[in-house]
Amino acid sequence: MGEKGSAATLSRRDLLRMIGVTAGSAAMYQAMSSLGYAAESPYRGPVRLEGAPKGASVLILGAGIAGMVAAYELRNAGYKVQVLEYNHRPGGRNWSLYGGDTYTELGGHTQHCRFDQGLYLNPGPWRIPYHHQGILSYCQRLGVKLEPFVQVNYNAYLHDSQAFGGKPQRLRAVKADYQGHVAELLSKSIQQSKLDGAVTREDQEKLLASLRTWGALDKHYAYAKGEASSNRRGFHKDPGGGLTARPVPSEPMGLADLLTAKAWLGLAAGDNYEMQTALFQPVGGMGQIGAAFGRELKGLIRYNARVTAIEQDEHGVSVRYEDTARPGAALTTRADWCLCTIPLSILGQLPINVGPAMAAAIAAVPYNASVKTGLQFKRRFWEQDEQIYGGISYTDLPINNIGYPNSDYFSQGKGVLLGTYAGGLSALELTSLTPEQRIEQALAYGSQIHPQYRKEFDCGISVAWHRVPFTQGCAGRWTEESRAEHYDNLCAIDGRIALAGEHASYIPAWQEGAVTSALDAIGRLHQRAVAQGAKA
Amino acid sequence: MGEKGSAATLSRRDLLRMIGVTAGSAAMYQAMSSLGYAAESPYRGPVRLEGAPKGASVLILGAGIAGMVAAYELRNAGYKVQVLEYNHRPGGRNWSLYGGDTYTELGGHTQHCRFDQGLYLNPGPWRIPYHHQGILSYCQRLGVKLEPFVQVNYNAYLHDSQAFGGKPQRLRAVKADYQGHVAELLSKSIQQSKLDGAVTREDQEKLLASLRTWGALDKHYAYAKGEASSNRRGFHKDPGGGLTARPVPSEPMGLADLLTAKAWLGLAAGDNYEMQTALFQPVGGMGQIGAAFGRELKGLIRYNARVTAIEQDEHGVSVRYEDTARPGAALTTRADWCLCTIPLSILGQLPINVGPAMAAAIAAVPYNASVKTGLQFKRRFWEQDEQIYGGISYTDLPINNIGYPNSDYFSQGKGVLLGTYAGGLSALELTSLTPEQRIEQALAYGSQIHPQYRKEFDCGISVAWHRVPFTQGCAGRWTEESRAEHYDNLCAIDGRIALAGEHASYIPAWQEGAVTSALDAIGRLHQRAVAQGAKA
Repeated sequence: MGEKGSAATLSRRDLLRMIGVTAGSAAMYQAMSSLGYAAESPYRGPVRLEGAPKGASVLILGAGIAGMVAAYELRNAGYKVQVLEYNHRPGGRNWSLYGGDTYTELGGHTQHCRFDQGLYLNPGPWRIPYHHQGILSYCQRLGVKLEPFVQVNYNAYLHDSQAFGGKPQRLRAVKADYQGHVAELLSKSIQQSKLDGAVTREDQEKLLASLRTWGALDKHYAYAKGEASSNRRGFHKDPGGGLTARPVPSEPMGLADLLTAKAWLGLAAGDNYEMQTALFQPVGGMGQIGAAFGRELKGLIRYNARVTAIEQDEHGVSVRYEDTARPGAALTTRADWCLCTIPLSILGQLPINVGPAMAAAIAAVPYNASVKTGLQFKRRFWEQDEQIYGGISYTDLPINNIGYPNSDYFSQGKGVLLGTYAGGLSALELTSLTPEQRIEQALAYGSQIHPQYRKEFDCGISVAWHRVPFTQGCAGRWTEESRAEHYDNLCAIDGRIALAGEHASYIPAWQEGAVTSALDAIGRLHQRAVAQGAKA
Repeated sequence: MGEKGSAATLSRRDLLRMIGVTAGSAAMYQAMSSLGYAAESPYRGPVRLEGAPKGASVLILGAGIAGMVAAYELRNAGYKVQVLEYNHRPGGRNWSLYGGDTYTELGGHTQHCRFDQGLYLNPGPWRIPYHHQGILSYCQRLGVKLEPFVQVNYNAYLHDSQAFGGKPQRLRAVKADYQGHVAELLSKSIQQSKLDGAVTREDQEKLLASLRTWGALDKHYAYAKGEASSNRRGFHKDPGGGLTARPVPSEPMGLADLLTAKAWLGLAAGDNYEMQTALFQPVGGMGQIGAAFGRELKGLIRYNARVTAIEQDEHGVSVRYEDTARPGAALTTRADWCLCTIPLSILGQLPINVGPAMAAAIAAVPYNASVKTGLQFKRRFWEQDEQIYGGISYTDLPINNIGYPNSDYFSQGKGVLLGTYAGGLSALELTSLTPEQRIEQALAYGSQIHPQYRKEFDCGISVAWHRVPFTQGCAGRWTEESRAEHYDNLCAIDGRIALAGEHASYIPAWQEGAVTSALDAIGRLHQRAVAQGAKA
């Protein structure tokens, strides 16, 4: 009794660890479920690849998250690993632009980032949900510090240029009013016995009581101007201290106005599984993860290497590439196996001798458009004038989002806003503009929400993902139909070539997709290598 | 043109500042409202007390937030300031307990805090809403660093010991299911034309569309097992990458089960104005604010000074007190004016010659009960096993809350949970126990939510506010009736004595109440002093 590891004192965690070690991840997963832990990320803890065939080598194409996760684990398992990377830096779409950085997009426009020290734009991913345990675990193992990312800020704005005279509304007011009106309407239905068929009398009573609390209704089950509603939406004059202290309640918006505004569009964003609190961001920019992987894999990654052809034969895989600094001179490298993480938008343009199933899958996935623009301002007016500390405002304008920095709160220096985070059609339109025009657009639209923009603007930088040389798009766009037809063919190993990346996952555009895709692919590649090794 | 301060380039903020300086805070407030800034805290920026009568002195009783805000501003305005404080430290209820601290409660029980370096319990306030601009502003002026406080964590628990077999439910699932069922029921009402009297046809269409998005309904406006609902409540098996990637949706709870659980009780907590994101906490514990004030006011505060009598006459105020280290020896000090921030629970026991109106007000406010217990665990199992990073779980058990630390996420060391945050009857019951028994209770109840408690427990500390010598209660409890009868009498200056503190505010128990109360009181005290000075 009491001895570490004895059955009597075995903690759930010890038990899970034991099961994980002895019976593998599937058993561990089942055990977790039956012990009552919800299924979280498909990431099951550090991968265990044992018994790499002696001298076996893997060539990895792309030093993004997928490629570097694979390189890290395969190296640790004893494989000879080499990584070819197009950029002069690790990370791929895991990328932060800092002052001093230079970026040239397709079409030739070069931007010089002039942000102050410590400020940045994350052109790609910018947040990590708590249940993305794979990427979070690599942050821990690589010593990347994390801080909270704020998705929902009740004091940020919901803005509809066609409603409320174009005046942005605080999310707290819209949320309170929407919830209040919904609760009142449903309460009325209950009180008028209109729910009698659908819900038992007893549950109706309970529901009524819950709606009153949840919707901030008054004692008559009305959502009305008063203390209850102002305690949610905010007051006209806040309560204070002393003799000037009495609060003055605010006037809720009418349901009709609220619905006209489509203001509810941004309301549920923070309820989405991927955007629920807790969320995290690396201290100093998302690119810190790529940088940490790069340091860890020093010597294994060849930068400025543009892959031009991939050819497998019975014994291995040969890859032709050129040094981007000396284009034209063809170089070649070879390994027993190849893990290719090149985005399909690029890979589809390269010669690669895989079977028709994988080839069709590579051709089947178009890439989403996305534009992000970072704007540096001389002061953090959103905090100082408007008490918005972090989070996101939503608008129906083409900029879509304004993202406030989730670090250095209350600091007196400059600050960088995410001035545009556009997708879909508006991203395609913005992509057709020059970087300067995109920045100007962000300023023009953003001024409708923050009139301080013009006066306080300092400098900006813009990334349109269809103009990014190393991806030519943001992330793979799957449909139900294309998944059914091509997804498994994309992921299945073809001879000696396996594919990985967010495009080979059910979590497109998220780093966790890249991580879990890479781990899944190298697990299968390893099995095949071990089987081959045994045969050899 | 272009010159700083010229009318043409005047920013809203400049304008507000100018108005504030020339026309005073009321005009500034009106201007802010008309410029479209919502009324936030009644705090209006740094107070401006000009022309303190030469040599005028103010004696401040209590070095809590109210007393120290007053001391800071009155000193800056030129007053001779002295502060008497019962404790050996500044802060009052602004207080963090660290390893090495010793605390003796009424009844004689002494606790020695054995928390690891950097870990703490905030027995009093623990969060600061973004709109409490007064206390936030003092943090900035005093160099107190702030970090996000997490109120709502979607992966924390709602726990009803009588429902779901006592098994805690993730907030995300309860929230999604509640919203989903509410949206579905209201959608049905609309579709069956049962809302025809209350809402126009056109608005019904818009409402229906919005409910579908907001409630994660499927295309038949049903809240059902599937991708839409799982994208809110979480999946049975999360989406991942590669060939083992396909997500498996989870099963929503039925409305009847949900309502039985009263699980909705904790749902709206984060919607309350005082608990909406963004919230902050000082890095290193709430007590850092008190400590910073203490450093700033070094030399002005006499510690270990227990006030025993307050007596005013025509010319000033005399206060008798004793050194808590040498009880019995009566000391006296005197000043022209007195600002008394002693909690009414204590002040009501002291002789003080104020008029019947203020005396009645002092006697009219009982103090709320509150108990907080901090539990140090050997590891952060809530993060490692359950992916709960910050935030609060709610339970119907007497511990009421479990608060997870909002700092040092992912760290490998020990961690301190807020194991109990009880109010009302259960706080009164807990107050009757010894600290050891309160800690045992926190462990026994908390184990129902986190079975790791017993194995991982290291040490604890507990503060029951009715046993705290310097307050004998948590915070003033006003009713509508007592406010109507006594509040203005409590705040009105009586001769040369003014009262301040959270009890003299409409934001009881919040530090912002103390700040705004102190600023309001010293503003009026200053006016009276100036008037008197002119007469003299």
